[in-house]
Amino acid sequence: MSDVTDVLKEYSKDIIKTIEENLAVIEPEELQESSIYLTRAGGKMLRPSLALISSQAVGGNKEDALNTAAAIELIHTFSLIHDDIMDDDDMRRGMPAVHKVWDNSLAILAGDTLFSKAFEMIISSKDNNAEPKRVADALAVVADACVKICEGQASDIGFEGDFDVSQEAYSNMIYKKTGALIAAATKAGAIMGGADDEQVHALYEYGRMIGTAFQIQDDYLDVAAEAEDLGRPLGSDIAKGKMTLMVVKALAEADESDRARLVEILEDENSSQDDVDEAIDLFNKYGSIEYAHNVALENINGAKEVLEILPDSEAKQQLIDIADFVLERKS
Amino acid sequence: MSDVTDVLKEYSKDIIKTIEENLAVIEPEELQESSIYLTRAGGKMLRPSLALISSQAVGGNKEDALNTAAAIELIHTFSLIHDDIMDDDDMRRGMPAVHKVWDNSLAILAGDTLFSKAFEMIISSKDNNAEPKRVADALAVVADACVKICEGQASDIGFEGDFDVSQEAYSNMIYKKTGALIAAATKAGAIMGGADDEQVHALYEYGRMIGTAFQIQDDYLDVAAEAEDLGRPLGSDIAKGKMTLMVVKALAEADESDRARLVEILEDENSSQDDVDEAIDLFNKYGSIEYAHNVALENINGAKEVLEILPDSEAKQQLIDIADFVLERKS
Repeated sequence: MSDVTDVLKEYSKDIIKTIEENLAVIEPEELQESSIYLTRAGGKMLRPSLALISSQAVGGNKEDALNTAAAIELIHTFSLIHDDIMDDDDMRRGMPAVHKVWDNSLAILAGDTLFSKAFEMIISSKDNNAEPKRVADALAVVADACVKICEGQASDIGFEGDFDVSQEAYSNMIYKKTGALIAAATKAGAIMGGADDEQVHALYEYGRMIGTAFQIQDDYLDVAAEAEDLGRPLGSDIAKGKMTLMVVKALAEADESDRARLVEILEDENSSQDDVDEAIDLFNKYGSIEYAHNVALENINGAKEVLEILPDSEAKQQLIDIADFVLERKS
Repeated sequence: MSDVTDVLKEYSKDIIKTIEENLAVIEPEELQESSIYLTRAGGKMLRPSLALISSQAVGGNKEDALNTAAAIELIHTFSLIHDDIMDDDDMRRGMPAVHKVWDNSLAILAGDTLFSKAFEMIISSKDNNAEPKRVADALAVVADACVKICEGQASDIGFEGDFDVSQEAYSNMIYKKTGALIAAATKAGAIMGGADDEQVHALYEYGRMIGTAFQIQDDYLDVAAEAEDLGRPLGSDIAKGKMTLMVVKALAEADESDRARLVEILEDENSSQDDVDEAIDLFNKYGSIEYAHNVALENINGAKEVLEILPDSEAKQQLIDIADFVLERKS
């Protein structure tokens, strides 16, 4: 597990260097600072690392996918900046959010700039002798993921306070909001590495499934982790009324009075820890925590299975380790 | 002049159809509606028409550049939506702005969606048998313009209340904010139409110069038009304290007391029409209105000159007519 952290840290170096180089030319200075701020705040760099590893897993090299990988991280960062404005979240990566350090206007622009730069960077791969067709294909994959991110965020906002969301609609939302960009990272990485169609498809499926598992596991840890590992009380998502797979499942399974009570706790903006614990008990009563864990586990197993068509390599092993890491992490 | 309006109207049909087709798949419905709203509100479609005409002016056909043209209109629309949030402008194209009909969150997302779709549309040209190299080149041009739009808007915000902005810094800002996308439209259109390097360069310069003239003329009309043509009192930009080439020039040329008075009027949020008229008199005293008109005229003449390398054609004549139209319009 610490191996995975080390692997990501190692890949991060090239990615951060590429991002810094590409953003250094932005002016005015305030726009440059606000655009680069969250990268410097330090992220896991999971998505871009997956792109670099996917390129190598199909026999390409890291350099082939470097611009595309860094671009995908910029798109992730862009979506964080804009989401934080929409949700009026104060903190991100342990630092004040971009719209808090500057203001909404500069945060909107910083996001837009990162988005623009991302496409500029992918397309500039053609200047490093990348095949134009690969570049165009990778770009199509990333643009498609961007549309999905927007759609996912819009659905997420639309679901607020709607306790009749079906599991299918919910799953589609988290696929778009989280899974699509992770899947784009592995697919675009594979394309830049010269993968054949079967490999491209496998790496897309791998990314989609670990992305789904990643989101479910995040929500799962909020109610099932050790509070000390999490660094905060259990159930903070419940206190905030956040929709999760566990909520959707529990609401679908619960009898009328339990359902009403759960909705009441989720809607209450001042839920006590006792209320939150009662909600967790209801999750357990209707097996929704175990259910979420099983869905995450199925996705991780599926992700590892689709990798079987790839030749053995260090990169393939890293992809397997990352899949396991998604479920093994404790916070 | 009405010819130009008719020409734009004719091109608009294909462009609107392409945009409608591409946005029809967006979900949820609220995101689709907010994304398509400003296109339906009706714009001049100057930028996408220029892309289609540029393609034909180098011997290509309209269809080669259609996706790119429509994408450029989406990028223009995206920047209007986000700018209106930043400036908290209530109205756009005679309708309530997107963030007024919906809210800031959905307006941010609608802009982001249009941006994503724009890149998806350009790249999808490759599915219509467009040469991958042309598609990649056109995409690079558009991505570069997007970075410049963000930089220009950030500079514009940064210039607010700064009356020491140099003419060079001001010109660079309006080039980025307005000229860059118009230049991208003509350049990308030329690329998709199969232009050689010299033609691509000429059409970029043409777009850059008419874009610059367009912005200056907009500001010029605000103080030099007939109020009845304009449909509003003269000098509304002055009342709002907007930075224009005329302001920058007058501030640079004025003696100390005139300069102080001009700054006072610009800073006053409650300027009377008498104050505004006094500012216009100061513009005239220091020749800044005539100066702005001359700069616009030089740009239009320059734009027509660079077209000389193109073979004669109906499209070339349309480009010349559009250049003249920029200065001939009365509002």
